[in-house]
Amino acid sequence: MPDSTIRLAHGSGGRLTHELIQKVFRPHFDDSLPLDDSAVLDFPPGRLAFTTDVHVVDPIFFPGGDIGRLSVCGTVNDLAAQAARPLYLTAAFVLEEGLSLNDLERVVKSMRQAADEAGVRVVAGDTKVVPKGKGDKVYIATAGVGVVPVGRQVSGANARPGDAVLISGTVGDHGMAVLSVRSGIAFESTMVSDVAPLNDLVESLFRAGLDVHVLRDPTRGGVATTLNEIARQSGVAIEVEEEAVLLRPEVLGACELLGFDPLYVANEGKMLVFVPAAEGNRALEILRAHPLGREAAVIGRVLEGPAGRVFLRTQIGGRRILDMLSGEQLPRIC
Amino acid sequence: MPDSTIRLAHGSGGRLTHELIQKVFRPHFDDSLPLDDSAVLDFPPGRLAFTTDVHVVDPIFFPGGDIGRLSVCGTVNDLAAQAARPLYLTAAFVLEEGLSLNDLERVVKSMRQAADEAGVRVVAGDTKVVPKGKGDKVYIATAGVGVVPVGRQVSGANARPGDAVLISGTVGDHGMAVLSVRSGIAFESTMVSDVAPLNDLVESLFRAGLDVHVLRDPTRGGVATTLNEIARQSGVAIEVEEEAVLLRPEVLGACELLGFDPLYVANEGKMLVFVPAAEGNRALEILRAHPLGREAAVIGRVLEGPAGRVFLRTQIGGRRILDMLSGEQLPRIC
Repeated sequence: MPDSTIRLAHGSGGRLTHELIQKVFRPHFDDSLPLDDSAVLDFPPGRLAFTTDVHVVDPIFFPGGDIGRLSVCGTVNDLAAQAARPLYLTAAFVLEEGLSLNDLERVVKSMRQAADEAGVRVVAGDTKVVPKGKGDKVYIATAGVGVVPVGRQVSGANARPGDAVLISGTVGDHGMAVLSVRSGIAFESTMVSDVAPLNDLVESLFRAGLDVHVLRDPTRGGVATTLNEIARQSGVAIEVEEEAVLLRPEVLGACELLGFDPLYVANEGKMLVFVPAAEGNRALEILRAHPLGREAAVIGRVLEGPAGRVFLRTQIGGRRILDMLSGEQLPRIC
Repeated sequence: MPDSTIRLAHGSGGRLTHELIQKVFRPHFDDSLPLDDSAVLDFPPGRLAFTTDVHVVDPIFFPGGDIGRLSVCGTVNDLAAQAARPLYLTAAFVLEEGLSLNDLERVVKSMRQAADEAGVRVVAGDTKVVPKGKGDKVYIATAGVGVVPVGRQVSGANARPGDAVLISGTVGDHGMAVLSVRSGIAFESTMVSDVAPLNDLVESLFRAGLDVHVLRDPTRGGVATTLNEIARQSGVAIEVEEEAVLLRPEVLGACELLGFDPLYVANEGKMLVFVPAAEGNRALEILRAHPLGREAAVIGRVLEGPAGRVFLRTQIGGRRILDMLSGEQLPRIC
């Protein structure tokens, strides 16, 4: 259907909705499932982790990914950050009238590929169509269910003084890659989003028997905002060594050019990991042994207080407060 | 905050996002939960039902409900239609820049009230903000998890020749109530949406020990489209008695005035129920004994074939094919 586009009637619930599901969604999602409105599934022993995300990234295709890959990885990574093994996803689409069916199919294929990488199944969905000018091509809300194996206790509230703070790689790649192709700002670059499913990387930490206290993927608001959330939830302070935080040269250059602080730029394929100080080096080894953690680093440590504060120790030896992002740095980055 | 409105920075993931969560969402949702990106929860023995919906109804407030109540009930009813007991919901919001914070809070309160009625908890959420003209006030995607108690076998594929087809009340109330206040169409009326959580109504059928074959809530596309879906999934024909289908007089009047067939108009508080013919009267009694099923009726029966066909036996004794909705009858009704 090279010239076909989404029409309002695709959202009617009638014949065109059914055709859309049969032609675009079912071939790429789980066609073994019945056509009921919800899926009935097996759930293994353990506690249930449940999360949701909605993605409105602009543009929907960007270097290294697209809104489909982003929505699957975002939900998988939220589950992984609870020490859960992701199992099932749902996907709900808000389509703007006039969206090209080819673009939609490309997004759906990309979701399937990311789901396969993560080892999860997309088991139910919904689609609505809004008139032109009441949306922007496609928004995708995903929800995910995972199982937390017995014995795992990971939470943003579990950071303890003395913990080592690690990150699984470079910072700021996703946000700057999206920005590099944003209409009105677009510039030539080799920046690529890091969007990837991190559940296997996280499992490698548990397989190694590490005592993981906190896992959190620093997406919107970046590393600085995420660390502030953890410091508040745990009632501790966190100190970050600026020189330990790795940046790709092109990301550093673009941030300097545009006046962004990379510590506030979104990542979509990075995990923050807190472990007891004595396990910091072992955790680093394990992360670096994984394809998605080769550039992992210890970037800081947890202090007693002041509770809720994050500090940056700068390369010239100073120390300043690293606050939560205030205001909008990069709208619609995810 | 009487004059406050949503700004792009409310979607940044930074300080304003946190303020929005603390002030508007947490007081009405589950403030016992930690501030992690996903919730970790107990799951009882049984299979897991998992579903999602996204709602884009226009206008967001309508007689009898609003987009918040609609989104909770829609997901609860999809779970109930799988014979599941709904347990947990997530909610993801796409907010348009300029949305009044008072309107948002009204919607969130309404979600909480509907969740309380249904006995479910909203356990995780996400919020994104899009620029003015890239959305329409608020879109809400909900996902829901429920448990299917051991022994229940309900599916759209389980209709059997001889089954009695029941509906829990009048038809077309939701769609016509929304339409009655749609800008450009608005007319005076006393029509009220039927939006309500049907999980307890469904449980009453199981408590009575009925052998329920199919449950399905006839939302978008109406009773006619939903019956077509069931006829196809089960490989049977279905015959509906026109005179058995109840309509409120004001709904009938509005449909006649505007040229709508009420069998294609959306319901948000009605359930289609298929049971063996011998259990039809008992099912009717049980439904009518429930506050949400007082006007329940047996509206038809399942035939051997032709497979996938739905027929309407009209009041004057004729018989015609009742096809799936084609084209868009009422856009953005849910």
